[in-house]
Amino acid sequence: MFSTETYIQRRRILKQKAGSGLLLFIGNDESGMNYRDNVYPFRQDSTFLYYFGLDVAGLTAVIDIDNDQEIIFGDELTIDDIVWTGPKEPLAEKAARVGIHQVRPSAAVSGYLKSSSAQVHFLPPYRGEHYLKLQEWIGITPAAASEKASVTLIKAVVAMRSYKSEEEIAEIEKAVNTSVDMHLEFMRITKPGLTEKQVAGQLQSIAIGQGGDISYPIILTVNGEILHTHTRDLAMRDGQLSLCDAGAETALRYCGDLTRTIPTGKKFTTLQKEMYEIVLNAEELAIAAAKPGVLFKDLHTLASTKLLEGLKAVGIIKGDPAEAVAHDAHTLFFQCGLGHMMGMDVHDMENLGEQFVGYTDDLKKGTTFGWKSLRLGRALEPGFVVTVEPGLYFIPTLIDRWKAENRLAQFIDYNKLESFRDFTGIRIEDDIVITETGHRILGKHLPKSVAEIEALR
Amino acid sequence: MFSTETYIQRRRILKQKAGSGLLLFIGNDESGMNYRDNVYPFRQDSTFLYYFGLDVAGLTAVIDIDNDQEIIFGDELTIDDIVWTGPKEPLAEKAARVGIHQVRPSAAVSGYLKSSSAQVHFLPPYRGEHYLKLQEWIGITPAAASEKASVTLIKAVVAMRSYKSEEEIAEIEKAVNTSVDMHLEFMRITKPGLTEKQVAGQLQSIAIGQGGDISYPIILTVNGEILHTHTRDLAMRDGQLSLCDAGAETALRYCGDLTRTIPTGKKFTTLQKEMYEIVLNAEELAIAAAKPGVLFKDLHTLASTKLLEGLKAVGIIKGDPAEAVAHDAHTLFFQCGLGHMMGMDVHDMENLGEQFVGYTDDLKKGTTFGWKSLRLGRALEPGFVVTVEPGLYFIPTLIDRWKAENRLAQFIDYNKLESFRDFTGIRIEDDIVITETGHRILGKHLPKSVAEIEALR
Repeated sequence: MFSTETYIQRRRILKQKAGSGLLLFIGNDESGMNYRDNVYPFRQDSTFLYYFGLDVAGLTAVIDIDNDQEIIFGDELTIDDIVWTGPKEPLAEKAARVGIHQVRPSAAVSGYLKSSSAQVHFLPPYRGEHYLKLQEWIGITPAAASEKASVTLIKAVVAMRSYKSEEEIAEIEKAVNTSVDMHLEFMRITKPGLTEKQVAGQLQSIAIGQGGDISYPIILTVNGEILHTHTRDLAMRDGQLSLCDAGAETALRYCGDLTRTIPTGKKFTTLQKEMYEIVLNAEELAIAAAKPGVLFKDLHTLASTKLLEGLKAVGIIKGDPAEAVAHDAHTLFFQCGLGHMMGMDVHDMENLGEQFVGYTDDLKKGTTFGWKSLRLGRALEPGFVVTVEPGLYFIPTLIDRWKAENRLAQFIDYNKLESFRDFTGIRIEDDIVITETGHRILGKHLPKSVAEIEALR
Repeated sequence: MFSTETYIQRRRILKQKAGSGLLLFIGNDESGMNYRDNVYPFRQDSTFLYYFGLDVAGLTAVIDIDNDQEIIFGDELTIDDIVWTGPKEPLAEKAARVGIHQVRPSAAVSGYLKSSSAQVHFLPPYRGEHYLKLQEWIGITPAAASEKASVTLIKAVVAMRSYKSEEEIAEIEKAVNTSVDMHLEFMRITKPGLTEKQVAGQLQSIAIGQGGDISYPIILTVNGEILHTHTRDLAMRDGQLSLCDAGAETALRYCGDLTRTIPTGKKFTTLQKEMYEIVLNAEELAIAAAKPGVLFKDLHTLASTKLLEGLKAVGIIKGDPAEAVAHDAHTLFFQCGLGHMMGMDVHDMENLGEQFVGYTDDLKKGTTFGWKSLRLGRALEPGFVVTVEPGLYFIPTLIDRWKAENRLAQFIDYNKLESFRDFTGIRIEDDIVITETGHRILGKHLPKSVAEIEALR
């Protein structure tokens, strides 16, 4: 937890930005797996943590701007609870540590909200419990809940959480350092014969051992072209690439998010090395260009162009790479975005809406294939923490579809491409903070060049 | 997945037991942590798996008994999905493998249910999404959903899932064997200076590496008296006991559930050894008495009496141990139950209601402290898989409360007890299957005697 003053100050600014009304923050509940009491690891809502710092299930917070009230609704443990959970610091004391001195029972939320005629501002729901509570407390139907979320409140929160304070950056860097340890272990233990799961389990144990957990499901796969694969059943074979996209979350719930792609055996093949360096060049170019004022959208274009320059050298792309990118030819190989905001959420504030977080009133998110997956487009500013993660992905289903349509055949050599059909995928990802003059890569050094990686294998 | 015929046969029997109407099975959805798409590991509902075998998010199954229909509602992947998740076996093919040949889109569930005048039988909801779907599809309000669940369907399911088939027992034994591996690692790596989390993370990696995951949050603590502690932040110190309650879940979602308590350092102290053997004697006595026809409730009494006999020997209990148990004196030290059903859920079928699973129409679950936590009371039958897990827990808050009331002072020597105030807790747990003539302990041998454990430290 940060200092009491940090939370008081954050709420003070929020109240100024939101102006008036009731601000309702629904904390997360415990989440049952196969029955109510067999629970997943508890994860508090990040905005709730940002303003109230209480990493405890079953809480609700209300800021009543017009009446200058800040209230935590939640229940103290009973003696029966204590038998099962052990003694805990009373909620009232916890709340006092974040500067809140009014604690009321959970059952009182509904009455408090209904007794006021002020507008209730709430954030978009993303868990079943949020929908159920909005319905029970203020009569918002589940179907209408997302669209009735407060744009005023969303914008106020985004305007604060986007700019990471020094203490937040220090905590993110701690998460990145643990993530680096996970990737060093990935490079140390990966070898033919192991299953993807065996390696992934080992990496998760590092995240847990360092006091937190993973910040998102580990992607650990010999099929790197599957962007979000969570099945990890395959045995790893010599000659394959292994892609690991894994990050830690600290005890304070700040994230790291790194990707490396390595040979499953000792060495990259000649072709793998060539392709790897295409991605590496694109990543380093995009990072080098990151500074205040630059549109992240333009970094995405820059990296995409660099990727196609590389693919031209290997004969897959024809013509002018920049023109090919202008026609979206890159989306056959790089279907996703160059990166995203990162903070307490690995895709920071994704629940608030990507248009609000990654774009502006004047810059709308794209809707076409590829561009619609670019979560961040707006101009970078000091204090933003973002990922940079270009990749090349050879997805047979997608290649078949484009080839059947002969799509963009002026830029794509489909005959040459055929031999890359089973190449799988490569991604390289680092986390950076935008500084006043440029950027800084977060965390301790994690090997990235072919020579560095092979030296560790 | 078991054979096609297994699932067909299970549904055939279920239809006979349920008689008539529509049987609605709501499969689980992906479950977001801090935003919708950052998901916890998917866990399908166990009853859904039992009858439909499809370990995939977002499905619903309907058995229309009167019209002899079996339908899976769910959506095939789009090309956009395939970019992110990779190609998957089509749902229609998956469904065919469990003997179901009607697959319809998710959006059609509501219409199907509303078009029938037959009674819709559903199981008690336990996730937000269940409540939301029941409301949207058949107009059941969240507040009424639990009480409107079908007792007919609950009883039919319990009457089947309680009796494990040979192939289920083999799968449970696989889970127990992985759980044994986790506990052997616990005994190998635990040492003063490590944090509880460092050890717990390592055990989880074994469960993941063997193809599944943990079957419940690992309890790994130097404060074994806290029955369900999930905070694992403490550094372990020499002289303490370390309690580990951990189990694996296989890829087919069957569980293991084992507990061992060991010295954090090399050896038990003399007192720890004496107390440990009290629990061990109770555990072995209860297991030895487990056979068809015996009330599990009576095994609980048997173990409780044995525990108090031991505590009499150390001077905490006075008078006749059996009489002390009859007065519930044991609940000061053994606040929970001796065990529970185990299968696809670690507390098997807990979501269906403990009265239905662990008791009968003629045998009601207790409501007093201690007894209300005994999940299983009914007579054992061949094919039941249950845990046996007595313990001794010295909970300062509870001791203080009883002492202040001088409760059952004819049986409890509160002066003597004072020196045990910080003793913490011990639990020993194995998993057994009830056979025609008695029982069998599941899984490979896991050291349990003081000598065996110390030999591994």
